[in-house]
Amino acid sequence: MLPEGGTEMDNVSIVFFQEDGIDAPILIEGLPGIGHVGKLVADHLIDELGGELVAEIYSLHFPPQVVIDGEGIARLVCNEIYRCEKDGKAILFLVGDFQSTSPEGHYILAESYLDIAEELGVQRIYALGGYGVGHLVEDPRILSAVNMEHLRPEVEAAGGSFENVGTGGAIVGASGLLLGLGEVRGIEGICLMGETSGYIVDPRSADSLLGVLSSLLGIEVDHTFLQERAEDMEQAIETIREAEEAKAREELNYIG
Amino acid sequence: MLPEGGTEMDNVSIVFFQEDGIDAPILIEGLPGIGHVGKLVADHLIDELGGELVAEIYSLHFPPQVVIDGEGIARLVCNEIYRCEKDGKAILFLVGDFQSTSPEGHYILAESYLDIAEELGVQRIYALGGYGVGHLVEDPRILSAVNMEHLRPEVEAAGGSFENVGTGGAIVGASGLLLGLGEVRGIEGICLMGETSGYIVDPRSADSLLGVLSSLLGIEVDHTFLQERAEDMEQAIETIREAEEAKAREELNYIG
Amino acid sequence: MLPEGGTEMDNVSIVFFQEDGIDAPILIEGLPGIGHVGKLVADHLIDELGGELVAEIYSLHFPPQVVIDGEGIARLVCNEIYRCEKDGKAILFLVGDFQSTSPEGHYILAESYLDIAEELGVQRIYALGGYGVGHLVEDPRILSAVNMEHLRPEVEAAGGSFENVGTGGAIVGASGLLLGLGEVRGIEGICLMGETSGYIVDPRSADSLLGVLSSLLGIEVDHTFLQERAEDMEQAIETIREAEEAKAREELNYIG
Amino acid sequence: MLPEGGTEMDNVSIVFFQEDGIDAPILIEGLPGIGHVGKLVADHLIDELGGELVAEIYSLHFPPQVVIDGEGIARLVCNEIYRCEKDGKAILFLVGDFQSTSPEGHYILAESYLDIAEELGVQRIYALGGYGVGHLVEDPRILSAVNMEHLRPEVEAAGGSFENVGTGGAIVGASGLLLGLGEVRGIEGICLMGETSGYIVDPRSADSLLGVLSSLLGIEVDHTFLQERAEDMEQAIETIREAEEAKAREELNYIG
Repeated sequence: MLPEGGTEMDNVSIVFFQEDGIDAPILIEGLPGIGHVGKLVADHLIDELGGELVAEIYSLHFPPQVVIDGEGIARLVCNEIYRCEKDGKAILFLVGDFQSTSPEGHYILAESYLDIAEELGVQRIYALGGYGVGHLVEDPRILSAVNMEHLRPEVEAAGGSFENVGTGGAIVGASGLLLGLGEVRGIEGICLMGETSGYIVDPRSADSLLGVLSSLLGIEVDHTFLQERAEDMEQAIETIREAEEAKAREELNYIG
Repeated sequence: MLPEGGTEMDNVSIVFFQEDGIDAPILIEGLPGIGHVGKLVADHLIDELGGELVAEIYSLHFPPQVVIDGEGIARLVCNEIYRCEKDGKAILFLVGDFQSTSPEGHYILAESYLDIAEELGVQRIYALGGYGVGHLVEDPRILSAVNMEHLRPEVEAAGGSFENVGTGGAIVGASGLLLGLGEVRGIEGICLMGETSGYIVDPRSADSLLGVLSSLLGIEVDHTFLQERAEDMEQAIETIREAEEAKAREELNYIG
Repeated sequence: MLPEGGTEMDNVSIVFFQEDGIDAPILIEGLPGIGHVGKLVADHLIDELGGELVAEIYSLHFPPQVVIDGEGIARLVCNEIYRCEKDGKAILFLVGDFQSTSPEGHYILAESYLDIAEELGVQRIYALGGYGVGHLVEDPRILSAVNMEHLRPEVEAAGGSFENVGTGGAIVGASGLLLGLGEVRGIEGICLMGETSGYIVDPRSADSLLGVLSSLLGIEVDHTFLQERAEDMEQAIETIREAEEAKAREELNYIG
Repeated sequence: MLPEGGTEMDNVSIVFFQEDGIDAPILIEGLPGIGHVGKLVADHLIDELGGELVAEIYSLHFPPQVVIDGEGIARLVCNEIYRCEKDGKAILFLVGDFQSTSPEGHYILAESYLDIAEELGVQRIYALGGYGVGHLVEDPRILSAVNMEHLRPEVEAAGGSFENVGTGGAIVGASGLLLGLGEVRGIEGICLMGETSGYIVDPRSADSLLGVLSSLLGIEVDHTFLQERAEDMEQAIETIREAEEAKAREELNYIG
């Protein structure tokens, strides 16, 4: 909830639910984007590691709407910061409903995210996303970018690919700006993008991304949930494909 | 009219026509939206209960235009606050020409509406609207959302439905933000949305919504006007349907 | 030209070329719009009455461009204030290249225009424009709106029509806002809109509008230029029509 | 990189890498635009003359993204100022990734560019661009505009054409505003636009533009790189044309 008593909404409002002991050296961003790959991974990790809600971020750069939860309660769209601890390692997560509605808003929000990161002692940001290729991908690579040269070997060792390099690629929105504006503040930034068709929510790509990410983090995470969702999705696609083939055969018989 | 003598328009300008004795615990929002369901209900209530104009709201977030009234007088587009008293109960209404032209403007205007609400002692807001379903609805349900959990039983008792819950629904614009931003200020918010096709102005849906609303308000309101308009509308649709069927039969005869 | 030495552009910059003796009780607005009807009338009047450039208005709410004049000199797009005197009557004109690129900009610019109007003692604004009807109009009416009730009889006596009243009409952009926001400052506003197809620049409609306007102003103005342009335009349309008919006949012969 | 430690991004952030001895009387603007003609010329000159990076310009009016370089390093999109010296003549260059995403941003950025120009003692700006004509151009003219009358003879003597004059032309974006807003500050502005189809990146048009520009600058520049790229492009187009003709002939044979 927003701070009570305020009479005007600022560009960005941040509400902390805890003040002490919430520092962490790592921030993982998984906001909505292509194939919801980053969001799937971040939400899965928060579930698996038992994340605790640390802060909510409201902004007039988000769409002007509320979402209705399973109880019929409307709540303002927002982004959220969660915090987890695993094997003595503390990790923050940036997740939420939407990215900005405008180009300027993307910059303003990214600076707010980095303000929070600095306040909480973050030294490295993992920005997660999808990399749309326009066709189904059987074995998705995790295409990567970094904001400081010394980070590349570590990413490659963990299975991240730099094969996209040299194609004039760009990273649009929060993931890109966290790297670009983060570098200015001396915060390391690693962007991991799971190859995905761009047409569907893609848990298979998320599963691959989780592999590289957990290797980089040095933590073990159960993949079962993402793998089951990926199998469900693949089963559904297969069923549709078979139905279409059956229909095509039928039409051929009819003609013949 | 706007405050005289001003040399620059603020984001939002509010002009009060009365200062004293205009408090009320209830605000009903019926701004233009899907099927104009909320607007029909609010305008009808203001007529029936004899509302008095309390304030006008101007903003550069509204479309840059004037509307021409029946006498050829142009007046700037605005939203208005009316006040009614019925059976010792005081009610404020928020109605008007338009909602914001931009996402940011929606937030800025909603905060202004809430500033007025707080100033006038409002403790509960009813946000009225339509819920577009893409086809004609014979017996429109009144789908509902609340901004505090304790409000739901009351809404259900009055005939509001929560069957939309769990579908990931959203409420966009003023209605949504009054709930979301109102909650921050401790103002109860109930959104009532009459099912409607989304293609026509829908007095039938408004009539159903009025039933639930007047039950929640605990006041009796005459429905005649809305019901007559609904019958006129249904008669007009029936006439079109018959004409189309007659035309279709004729064409069949011609072919046959 | 903009004030020299400034290091940052304000929302709106106004540059006066004269300071003294430039007051006038009347402002005529003829900015670009439907059929360029208002612009044609205002530009014609400035020519006929020998207007003098009084001020230029620059704004980041105009399109970000320069226009190239007949000598190859680029100049920033702007609006301009001209001043004329005829039979002891002083009149200001607001003309120019463009209206605002955004809804908010329309409001901000209109307030700036009214600031100038107040400073120069303007008591009445004539806002000129076109009224698009979607088909060629032989004898265009001058549809009208006013911002104060007492102005209507005068407009009707001069030949202005209020037959558009009651259709829920709106006036968008500078013309509308000068009436709406002007009323707040106690400045009389009369909007005259020449019926026009909306597809072509329409000197015929402008010629009709000039008739009503000069009657309201109580000044005689030569119409020759607008009438000649109207005849040229009608001749061109007639030539196109004949060519199309000839082509249609030819095709019939070919088929027959 | 942006100034470290800042917690909020300004509209425009300028980072200087050198402070002393970077003045120059000439600024050449070659931002992305039609056919990338201006960009090709400016980038070529920086290469040939050995330009040194003097400043970077960041802004929330640029697209919210990073670009990935050949090493996989992401960097925030920006514009850049380079400085060259040749035959004792110092020249500044304004080049970069993007122009503004909004009309207002174009004005704000152009004023920032002019602030830098004034600070560095610039007395003349060459704004380079393409002039789209919708078809391939064999021998592209360099169409021109100036912001002060006395500049025209010099441009004509160097081979710049003013044949576009009198067609109501406009120059949109940074090139136009540098002339229009530059004039206000007493900075001479010359816009050179190479004719180009508008469909392809056009090194042939850039090569022609370089001829006029180097004559105006009074410096010799090697054209080899641009000419080779132009020949490669023309070869590629010729190959496509031949393939299409061969295909057309084949189809004719098949039919015949």
